[in-house]
Amino acid sequence: MRRSANRTDYQSKRRSRFIIIMSLELIDVNPISFSAKQNLFDSNENVTFPKGEKASAEYFTGTAFVNILVAQDETNCFAVGDVIFEPGCRNNWHTHPAGQILLVTDGKGYYQERNKPARSLSKGDVVVIPSNVEHWHGATPDSRFAHLAITNKTKNGTVTWLKPVTDEEYQNAAKD
Amino acid sequence: MRRSANRTDYQSKRRSRFIIIMSLELIDVNPISFSAKQNLFDSNENVTFPKGEKASAEYFTGTAFVNILVAQDETNCFAVGDVIFEPGCRNNWHTHPAGQILLVTDGKGYYQERNKPARSLSKGDVVVIPSNVEHWHGATPDSRFAHLAITNKTKNGTVTWLKPVTDEEYQNAAKD
Repeated sequence: MRRSANRTDYQSKRRSRFIIIMSLELIDVNPISFSAKQNLFDSNENVTFPKGEKASAEYFTGTAFVNILVAQDETNCFAVGDVIFEPGCRNNWHTHPAGQILLVTDGKGYYQERNKPARSLSKGDVVVIPSNVEHWHGATPDSRFAHLAITNKTKNGTVTWLKPVTDEEYQNAAKD
Repeated sequence: MRRSANRTDYQSKRRSRFIIIMSLELIDVNPISFSAKQNLFDSNENVTFPKGEKASAEYFTGTAFVNILVAQDETNCFAVGDVIFEPGCRNNWHTHPAGQILLVTDGKGYYQERNKPARSLSKGDVVVIPSNVEHWHGATPDSRFAHLAITNKTKNGTVTWLKPVTDEEYQNAAKD
């Protein structure tokens, strides 16, 4: 009995250790591989529009890629770009003098206006950003995020960049 | 030897018949199921933006769905719509007084300007349609096709619809 009890303790300890290891596997501290799994789950391994140039670290926290699909000089009044945010990446707080349209093509992300709760975004969502409203957008911590951006041009340009989104502001957005 | 030769002939005839049957399976004359397989192959079972209203038979040959994502009155100068063409569907010849941008999000299709060869389109392609240039767009015979359309507004409206694309014009586009 005693030996069998010992064996049971030993087996249950082994089982606990196994469960802990499996849990760590599931948490997966590598955001890219977690994102890959999620995209696979979404039947969306590849983004819709090809990756562009790496976005400036001056205006983005984390890694993003910007692909200018249609330059403003090809249209009367707007440019079209595609932005891919790697997991955890977001742009700085900023404003647009004549607004901007976001069309979400892949992944999961957030859009937040100053003093408002963050809005969760996924494939197929549309955001109409009003003129001169302070806001930011970016990926969730565990998913890549891609959107098209249609930006009106004005004689005052297209964007005014402000301060980075702090880790606290970003973590609060994830809680909203 | 003779009997073994006969057996070989008989086996090779059976093999040929089997190959013919398998080939017919692969040809698959049903465009919808072929399209479904192709989308599955593209890891893209669902379209990026949700289906809208069925498009008017007055301006489309076959079945298409139009989803107005951003109305013109929400922007200074343009509207954004998503169009899903079922296999074989195309719109009529038409022009835009201030041009249009197409952003291909799913499937395979064509864009053709009058007196030019058709251009094949797939996910990630962009078309900048000049003002007042006669053209049409639509799906290939065996794949669904979806694109966003950004259309500039003018005091003369956004589009002038012309004649349907004939079956001959469509079949020639598929040959280009």
